[in-house]
Amino acid sequence: MNQSHNITNMKLTRFLCFALTVALAASCAKTVPASVPAHIEDGYIVLDTPEREAGQQSALAMACDPIETVRVAFVGVGGRGRSAVSRYTHIEGVQIVAFCDLEQAKVDRCNAILTAAGLPEARTYVGEEAYKDLCKCDDIDLVYIATDWLDHAPVALCAMENGHHAAMEVPGVMTIQDCWDIVNTSERTRRHCMLLENCCYDFFEMATMKMAQEGLFGEVYHVEGAYIHYLAENWSFDEQWRLDYNMANRGDNYPTHGFGPICQVMNIHRGDRLDYLVAMDTPSYNGRKAAKELRGVDECADGDHTISLIQTVNKHLMEVQHNVYCPRPYTRMHQLTGSKGFANKYPIEQISIRTMNPEHEEELTAAVRDSLLEAYLPDFVKEIQEKARTVGGHGGMDYIMDYRLIYCLRNGLPLDQDVYDAAEWSAVQELSRLSVENGSMPVKVPDFTRGEWNVIDGYSYAMK
Amino acid sequence: MNQSHNITNMKLTRFLCFALTVALAASCAKTVPASVPAHIEDGYIVLDTPEREAGQQSALAMACDPIETVRVAFVGVGGRGRSAVSRYTHIEGVQIVAFCDLEQAKVDRCNAILTAAGLPEARTYVGEEAYKDLCKCDDIDLVYIATDWLDHAPVALCAMENGHHAAMEVPGVMTIQDCWDIVNTSERTRRHCMLLENCCYDFFEMATMKMAQEGLFGEVYHVEGAYIHYLAENWSFDEQWRLDYNMANRGDNYPTHGFGPICQVMNIHRGDRLDYLVAMDTPSYNGRKAAKELRGVDECADGDHTISLIQTVNKHLMEVQHNVYCPRPYTRMHQLTGSKGFANKYPIEQISIRTMNPEHEEELTAAVRDSLLEAYLPDFVKEIQEKARTVGGHGGMDYIMDYRLIYCLRNGLPLDQDVYDAAEWSAVQELSRLSVENGSMPVKVPDFTRGEWNVIDGYSYAMK
Repeated sequence: MNQSHNITNMKLTRFLCFALTVALAASCAKTVPASVPAHIEDGYIVLDTPEREAGQQSALAMACDPIETVRVAFVGVGGRGRSAVSRYTHIEGVQIVAFCDLEQAKVDRCNAILTAAGLPEARTYVGEEAYKDLCKCDDIDLVYIATDWLDHAPVALCAMENGHHAAMEVPGVMTIQDCWDIVNTSERTRRHCMLLENCCYDFFEMATMKMAQEGLFGEVYHVEGAYIHYLAENWSFDEQWRLDYNMANRGDNYPTHGFGPICQVMNIHRGDRLDYLVAMDTPSYNGRKAAKELRGVDECADGDHTISLIQTVNKHLMEVQHNVYCPRPYTRMHQLTGSKGFANKYPIEQISIRTMNPEHEEELTAAVRDSLLEAYLPDFVKEIQEKARTVGGHGGMDYIMDYRLIYCLRNGLPLDQDVYDAAEWSAVQELSRLSVENGSMPVKVPDFTRGEWNVIDGYSYAMK
Repeated sequence: MNQSHNITNMKLTRFLCFALTVALAASCAKTVPASVPAHIEDGYIVLDTPEREAGQQSALAMACDPIETVRVAFVGVGGRGRSAVSRYTHIEGVQIVAFCDLEQAKVDRCNAILTAAGLPEARTYVGEEAYKDLCKCDDIDLVYIATDWLDHAPVALCAMENGHHAAMEVPGVMTIQDCWDIVNTSERTRRHCMLLENCCYDFFEMATMKMAQEGLFGEVYHVEGAYIHYLAENWSFDEQWRLDYNMANRGDNYPTHGFGPICQVMNIHRGDRLDYLVAMDTPSYNGRKAAKELRGVDECADGDHTISLIQTVNKHLMEVQHNVYCPRPYTRMHQLTGSKGFANKYPIEQISIRTMNPEHEEELTAAVRDSLLEAYLPDFVKEIQEKARTVGGHGGMDYIMDYRLIYCLRNGLPLDQDVYDAAEWSAVQELSRLSVENGSMPVKVPDFTRGEWNVIDGYSYAMK
């Protein structure tokens, strides 16, 4: 556990690596490269927080001028990006203006989608650097980023620098340095940078968050999320870059599907803050097997299973798990434990509420549970859920996410997921890597709001 | 997190407290009392391992002379002890010779059970120190201990010192010093000291362990256990001492129901070893509420929810949770994740096996699952399961546990749960406390076998 693991990343040039130079004791000299300067203090790995530059201000609750018709450009239109294009043909107040990808065939397929929907074709950009030309255009309001993971940050930064809002697919950005870059750029340019965490818009998650907000579970002190999804069948197709990333990076490389929704429940940077994280993992078995079969390399940095525990400053307890290698049923956990009740999404939906359970320890009947889950959907969801389920996208949550992003932009409202959410949720990747590479040493979570985590009182959806 | 938390234990005299005196860095002086000498080394809390005394030898796979009729004395015959007495009237080859309790009424009730079963009455011992008189008697082979938690260790030590085998209820002994005491005493006196972890004998646990041993799940690298049980209705009745204990002790105070079965699956000290533990907890909400209502004290050390992660020396990952305060459904989790399959007991039984699932990521049908769970029960369970389900005790597992203990004693075989299991499983309590009181710093788990954890090749039930 004293071994130094190098970041053998595909795009090493994007990293600034600093060694942890403060030894724990004379006998100990842990040296793990982090993407920002780091040291060990009081038993924790602590990453430096850069000062806020002059002329830059908080982007908390940031509202921008309303945009009547949101002109959207899509960068990265493989599987995920293409399905976003399809969905956006159903969203009111949107004009699709450009597509960018590494492959001509992919942008062409998107134009075929537009044509089929009776819409005019969009401009196309093809090539590694083509997103830079796209971002230079003035007729864009929003850049929707669904590239490979490592390109999320550069494209988002380029979009904001050119005056466009950015929305990027999960898992967001990949390093703490990236997190600071999107925060600083959003604060300086006053452009939004949203993480497209669709799982925040799934029905169970939204309804139980509202139940939590209205106190049905009492004080919610423990939450769990996960991304456990057997991807073995996908490695050899679309997502070879994902296998490459996992081969090079230890830690929870895809935390946000599980972590985003529970951060919203816990009001992270809206009354509570992530304090520190500890992580633990396993060796790589199936990841290494895939690396050998598909890449001829008998090595994979990412352990098959990774668990991170996060303590908040209110001393609440969060857990997030990652496993894309085990042939087991899909789960995002989504479990909320409170002083008066409990909700659990996987493998079965369970709700317990102290005052509604005569026997206290048993769950509500399916009928009562389902009527609560319906009653506690946010009002805007009740209005659009029929269309959401028709348009689809993971059962409707993708459509609701699109709807909300465009609604907020059109009405000049703060987004549901701000740039601090994007940074906090993405940060689990490098923080968990630092912890597992240091024998589960706790790592302090940077406060990306720089002290303003307690200004907003609780999570809410902005409405006109 | 720099605050020093004192052990304000009910029986402080039983603790030898040593401060962690090695600071992490100049700025840091963590001082948490442990029950054995401890220091910080290389980022870990490390507890001293005492040398094995001369004339003492390993108790691994320890077999003792066969006992034709096992003469049993019960110490502590409240709710749990009394039900054990009832069950023992159904076990062949047993003679119940003595009862001991703080209250005359309780030992009398046990004699009434014997009378009703057509058995002769047993001798009775009443009072705080009465177990010492009981242990002095020669006509006892086994002392069955179901006292309050803090008396498990003293009674077990006294039994062994007087030449009797000891079997104690969960959660075993309460400190690392206690763990070493039972290990050293068992090694020196050559008497068994078994933890009565009944959950190791539940049907799902036994069947899935056998499936794991036969490779159906591939390499099992991640396991989870828990004790999540809403006990609020019990605080004011039988178990006020449990509330008192929790009020005084932070950490996972009742780990073994979840932890014991997964340790068996992971072959702990039979090819793998617990390396280090990190724990995280929440504030006390409902515990503190109970403390206030029932004790007039607005304070409770035990957080409502505690999670411990344990890394083994084979780099496998174990998780155990504790929550006796939340009104949510009972769970012990019991989840096994492997390279080829998966098993999950709560809230629904799920089994996935790579080679049997055409779609790989989906679970087996209920019919296939149930036939596997039946087929993979150990042979001895198949023979006795009908009687087990009739006699009962948590659905039969208590009876199977009793049966196995007496079977092994009568046949001079090593017990299913040896003194090292008792120490390892009990140790989670103090280790988790040390970690949470030190901001989730990792704590090295003592090797109670003193280097012999890799001598036995895999877990097995001894059979004649």
